Amino acid sequence: MLAAVRLISDAEMRKIVRGLGAIEREIMAGEFKFDIADEDIHLAIERRLTEMIGAAGRKLHTARSRNDQVALDFRLYLRDEITTIVELIVGLRAALIGIANEHTETAMPGYTHLQRAQPVSLAHHLLAYVEMFARDVERFEQARERTDVMPLGAGALAGTTLPIDRMAVARELGFKRVAENSMDAVADRDFAVDFLAAAALTAIHLSRMAEEIILWTSSEFGFAELPDEFATGSSMMPQKKNPDLLELIRGKSGRMVGNLMAMLMILKGLPLAYNSDLQEDKERVFDSADTLKPALAILTKFWPRLTFKPEVMKAAAGGFGLATDLAEYLVARQVPFREAHEVIGALVRETAARGGRLEDLALEELQRYAKAFGPDVMTMLSAESSIAARKLIGGPAPATVRKRLKQLGRG
Amino acid sequence: MLAAVRLISDAEMRKIVRGLGAIEREIMAGEFKFDIADEDIHLAIERRLTEMIGAAGRKLHTARSRNDQVALDFRLYLRDEITTIVELIVGLRAALIGIANEHTETAMPGYTHLQRAQPVSLAHHLLAYVEMFARDVERFEQARERTDVMPLGAGALAGTTLPIDRMAVARELGFKRVAENSMDAVADRDFAVDFLAAAALTAIHLSRMAEEIILWTSSEFGFAELPDEFATGSSMMPQKKNPDLLELIRGKSGRMVGNLMAMLMILKGLPLAYNSDLQEDKERVFDSADTLKPALAILTKFWPRLTFKPEVMKAAAGGFGLATDLAEYLVARQVPFREAHEVIGALVRETAARGGRLEDLALEELQRYAKAFGPDVMTMLSAESSIAARKLIGGPAPATVRKRLKQLGRG
Amino acid sequence: MLAAVRLISDAEMRKIVRGLGAIEREIMAGEFKFDIADEDIHLAIERRLTEMIGAAGRKLHTARSRNDQVALDFRLYLRDEITTIVELIVGLRAALIGIANEHTETAMPGYTHLQRAQPVSLAHHLLAYVEMFARDVERFEQARERTDVMPLGAGALAGTTLPIDRMAVARELGFKRVAENSMDAVADRDFAVDFLAAAALTAIHLSRMAEEIILWTSSEFGFAELPDEFATGSSMMPQKKNPDLLELIRGKSGRMVGNLMAMLMILKGLPLAYNSDLQEDKERVFDSADTLKPALAILTKFWPRLTFKPEVMKAAAGGFGLATDLAEYLVARQVPFREAHEVIGALVRETAARGGRLEDLALEELQRYAKAFGPDVMTMLSAESSIAARKLIGGPAPATVRKRLKQLGRG
Amino acid sequence: MLAAVRLISDAEMRKIVRGLGAIEREIMAGEFKFDIADEDIHLAIERRLTEMIGAAGRKLHTARSRNDQVALDFRLYLRDEITTIVELIVGLRAALIGIANEHTETAMPGYTHLQRAQPVSLAHHLLAYVEMFARDVERFEQARERTDVMPLGAGALAGTTLPIDRMAVARELGFKRVAENSMDAVADRDFAVDFLAAAALTAIHLSRMAEEIILWTSSEFGFAELPDEFATGSSMMPQKKNPDLLELIRGKSGRMVGNLMAMLMILKGLPLAYNSDLQEDKERVFDSADTLKPALAILTKFWPRLTFKPEVMKAAAGGFGLATDLAEYLVARQVPFREAHEVIGALVRETAARGGRLEDLALEELQRYAKAFGPDVMTMLSAESSIAARKLIGGPAPATVRKRLKQLGRG
Repeated sequence: MLAAVRLISDAEMRKIVRGLGAIEREIMAGEFKFDIADEDIHLAIERRLTEMIGAAGRKLHTARSRNDQVALDFRLYLRDEITTIVELIVGLRAALIGIANEHTETAMPGYTHLQRAQPVSLAHHLLAYVEMFARDVERFEQARERTDVMPLGAGALAGTTLPIDRMAVARELGFKRVAENSMDAVADRDFAVDFLAAAALTAIHLSRMAEEIILWTSSEFGFAELPDEFATGSSMMPQKKNPDLLELIRGKSGRMVGNLMAMLMILKGLPLAYNSDLQEDKERVFDSADTLKPALAILTKFWPRLTFKPEVMKAAAGGFGLATDLAEYLVARQVPFREAHEVIGALVRETAARGGRLEDLALEELQRYAKAFGPDVMTMLSAESSIAARKLIGGPAPATVRKRLKQLGRG
Repeated sequence: MLAAVRLISDAEMRKIVRGLGAIEREIMAGEFKFDIADEDIHLAIERRLTEMIGAAGRKLHTARSRNDQVALDFRLYLRDEITTIVELIVGLRAALIGIANEHTETAMPGYTHLQRAQPVSLAHHLLAYVEMFARDVERFEQARERTDVMPLGAGALAGTTLPIDRMAVARELGFKRVAENSMDAVADRDFAVDFLAAAALTAIHLSRMAEEIILWTSSEFGFAELPDEFATGSSMMPQKKNPDLLELIRGKSGRMVGNLMAMLMILKGLPLAYNSDLQEDKERVFDSADTLKPALAILTKFWPRLTFKPEVMKAAAGGFGLATDLAEYLVARQVPFREAHEVIGALVRETAARGGRLEDLALEELQRYAKAFGPDVMTMLSAESSIAARKLIGGPAPATVRKRLKQLGRG
Repeated sequence: MLAAVRLISDAEMRKIVRGLGAIEREIMAGEFKFDIADEDIHLAIERRLTEMIGAAGRKLHTARSRNDQVALDFRLYLRDEITTIVELIVGLRAALIGIANEHTETAMPGYTHLQRAQPVSLAHHLLAYVEMFARDVERFEQARERTDVMPLGAGALAGTTLPIDRMAVARELGFKRVAENSMDAVADRDFAVDFLAAAALTAIHLSRMAEEIILWTSSEFGFAELPDEFATGSSMMPQKKNPDLLELIRGKSGRMVGNLMAMLMILKGLPLAYNSDLQEDKERVFDSADTLKPALAILTKFWPRLTFKPEVMKAAAGGFGLATDLAEYLVARQVPFREAHEVIGALVRETAARGGRLEDLALEELQRYAKAFGPDVMTMLSAESSIAARKLIGGPAPATVRKRLKQLGRG
Repeated sequence: MLAAVRLISDAEMRKIVRGLGAIEREIMAGEFKFDIADEDIHLAIERRLTEMIGAAGRKLHTARSRNDQVALDFRLYLRDEITTIVELIVGLRAALIGIANEHTETAMPGYTHLQRAQPVSLAHHLLAYVEMFARDVERFEQARERTDVMPLGAGALAGTTLPIDRMAVARELGFKRVAENSMDAVADRDFAVDFLAAAALTAIHLSRMAEEIILWTSSEFGFAELPDEFATGSSMMPQKKNPDLLELIRGKSGRMVGNLMAMLMILKGLPLAYNSDLQEDKERVFDSADTLKPALAILTKFWPRLTFKPEVMKAAAGGFGLATDLAEYLVARQVPFREAHEVIGALVRETAARGGRLEDLALEELQRYAKAFGPDVMTMLSAESSIAARKLIGGPAPATVRKRLKQLGRG
């Protein structure tokens, strides 16, 4: 661009480009000598460039300031990181969808208040996370849009009097937009907050997922068994499989929320434009990116290796969790909801008191509570039929879930 | 909808609708009697409805659960609040744009590190906030999109076996989409996090703005004077005008970030689906909404009443802040940037050492440092010409800023 | 004090004291008329006092500023609140100690990674919380010490030229110390941070406790049953007892940590001395106090009503959790630890593989793994004997725990 | 200890001690070979020890678990770090006290709301920070007390059946107390929260200090000049001295508060006893320690190099800031406070309106407002006499401050 607007000659441009290429190779090869006296990477490169190509090197920094350059570099970095993270979330979603495809008929208890409430399928349960991750992807993509703004040309804060072409630079670097205010361009770290907020919420989702798997793989739940390669055992207690990995992922939500807190606090009350407080941005963002990426990658490998125990899940899924279906059966037959509710309440209470199960009730017993019960009610009293009957959009019925899975495709 | 799918008759529907209308009027008139025995608003209304219209009232709760209803109500509330907040931000932006329109030529120092760096215009400075608020609006609108999802039909967590029509309900209530997973529908509070994060970042922007006005209205800066009605004086020290309002707004950023942290922590590690921890969501969200709205409204009224002192601002704007222009003058005449930088460094150092000012240098003095200086440099040595020369996109030149203001319209 | 140093006469003092007494009674009786024109409580009282007693009322505010008065009132309030909270924590500890006294022999599994590890007693488990609460009490008492500092006399920020007696005021108000720097006296809110930090950590302890009871009262664990009056049921599913109370307490940890974050952020970067940002302190502190107190009070009533299922707990406590004991048996007989570890590892692996239990092994089988096993090992293979053998200080043996309970007294 | 209780022989003990010494030297010399297959530092050392000394090495881990060992190591580390940090705070306090000793008579404006309020001395202002740091030291020492508890013997969570002597180990390692509950011993990270909270609040104090110096060294305040070695200049604008160092310190408060947030969130809702989430504790704590230590050390060197401009500070200190003294003069002569307040209000308003200064008023002019003014009032109208007259405990009078400095000693 500097050559295009005649701030440097074409010959200088070619020298600079060649020189920078050579320096890149030196850095890659580990041969570049950094010197603390250079202050920072920008000056180190200019110094080396001038050694290599002479006077033209001293034109490298034309129309640039470290304030706009650091904003540029940070945005370039983050744009790529977000792309990677979106791919990783999509990968994890695909893994969940893959498992869901196999478990549309696997009954398990749905919980509220960690109490068994009504039966759902494993596929339906997993799709709740797929929804969360869809929102995470959207949020990261929106953060990426706000990152995808070219700050160069803002100089230290007030732009430049030189006839540079910001749009050309933006095109060259693949940016969608240029910053419309030079002071904002160097003082803004909202894109870092956007990223850290998106990362924090994804981390919260992972913490919920981790908590559930930790519960499922406990002796008490016994819904699934950890894969050996994702558990730490103890040579002492070989029966013990510790879900360290999941505990770490759960714990790392704290770290990522802490990074968000830090960044918001750094920005609080900062006058315009650039202040060195902003230097604290990078470590926070690097840390959240470097924490989130492996967590996503590992979970993507983890899920297909988790062994479910469908019979245990199913055994926990039925029982009084079917009571709602009985009430709805009556409602569908014009019994007012509140009355149906009371009738089934009594039925369940009395059945429980004598140690019985809903599944074992005879039609006559049901009819003693409500005449509206017909023979067709008898086919309803199982976890599977309860699930199958919840066919509404967003419901757990296998047909509904399969339709949803089809919409979602491979993730 | 219940009538349309024949879960209730048309006659029942009409009774219910009329009854609910009457109850609404009772509540508005303060005549509705709440009773703690009713447990919550849902049951209170059903109880009163049944008193009024008889048995049909007992069908009110058909195919609903408090879990999906509370999610619905919260989303309806938040959708409206976000709309209001967006309008308020747009209003504040319009106020800033109005002032900017009058001050495209008002010179002031641009700061980095709270040290005077280069001259900018007040309009340019204010437009940095306009950029921030544009991002805030976008972020709130995206949060609104994720709030605009209809959860009803999810029941307690597993949907219902009744033949309800969720799409019809969504249309009726003006929702764009329905929740695609019943467990997510009742366990999800991401939309609350989205809102709280958007509110927190807007609050951070307001804290930066408040900090700047506090600085500007200090005796030391003296760039502006607080309007009496927005300052608290002291009958004791009538010269003292305290920017309480701005300090409070600055301080309230802490509260809004605290609300975000609270909500993230509430969600951490929660297993699916609904847990009562989620009840903590509402106070956090109400508090951020009720804090942000008046802050925005008051600032919108405040800005037009702030009295600027252009002569003070201008006096602080020139001086060595013009050095960069001299270096760029040389660069434009093919002096390598690094050399120009060194030359002007020496010029400034020596001028400062003898107590001189750049504005007072004669052409010959400049030429002693660099032959490339021509007579045209003499017209550059003022804050105004420095600003006017920064014509690039996003720069402070009056022409550029006016163009941008035109694009922005009335805000 | 003003009379003692002759700033007002004794007659004026008596009038003022009488007048303030009358005003207190008016406020208590709800008869005091607040007027927005009075600006704040200080001026409202002075206005009313002057109405009542004439000119002497206009001396009320002598040698005071709202800045030091608000610091005083806040410290007085917080000193009392902390005292109340300490009493409530002590009450909760006493409840736990009471239950522990009855359960020194009740075996239950001790968990690491939410996997059953080694048997402990319920008493031992509860005493872990007693230790946490002991630290909480200490932390609150230290916060109270730092609150117990008298700021009056600091005036707006620079003290007063009037000959007041700060030590006398401190004695009168029961303060241990006076603030040693007038600027710090009005700018300091560290005591609020101390309080909020202590409250946040106590809230975290309550969240851990709540999580555990939620697990214990799930169908899957079944270690305890919620008392009806502390659970919300469902007339529909009477078997369902939701631990709302505990979920709310768990969730409220978010709120209290949010308050701490808010307060720290409010203080960040505030120049000395008083700034109105500090007005945000009170709501944060009131909210944490008003959240923590009922949580502690309710848990104190809750614990004695929780019904434990010792047989379920015991059944979960033995099994391979006894493996460590076998290894330690060998170590005590000079088998190197690492070797003992490997031997028992093999024993457990092979026993588990064939579906056996450690409790059922014959001496000969054990001896096949290690000759060092003698007949006395046979008495070790139960949860009870495992617990009883861990007699070291801090261990779960009933004798040790009873000794500790004796030290702790009634809490 | 293991030898003392006969779990190992004296010969084994001597071998182990010698071997560990040799390993320490290997590690120091960088010759120790770490192998990922060793899993962690504990097993790496045991493996190497066994290579060196044979079978006795396999007894190293007797009566220990990684859960109690990691708690031990973390407490040992933190105990030392806190000691270092306390020394650094004391050093910074000493630097401030040193400067204060030289500036008990240096007048400057005291601010409220960043508006000049009343004159104080630089010494008095600095002593406000000395008070804050005194509280910080106390808080860290209390955190140290709660860290100084020996967890070893807790094993994985339930102690051990082996006859170990915990008190002896505690004495040997210099611990004041032993953990009284084995489950708490491995599940507790309250000491990390205590540390992070103390570090966060100290960081907030540093952020306030940094903000003030940034203001003082701005062109607008001009109260002080940055030392060259603690400012970054610009070869372009040599007059520009950027307070990067202070901005970084201000910004780092965000990071340290973020670490506290992270740790609290990690602990939220964790069931007992050990969970791997706790592994996240160390980086948070290391980061806060490694951030706080250099910040304190650098500020200690920075302060003595800061050049004050007493004449600028003094010029800003007088003026209407003296009005309070005039009102108090009247109050001391029995004019009711509220009346004095109104009288001086009128005096100031009218003097300001005609562009006058309080310092220039003649006695007759004062007496026109209040007869109580006598000739002695004329000696009061300067910043110095205003400061000198505020002799109360905690006030800015040079005599008072010198007395306080004597109490404080060398810091």
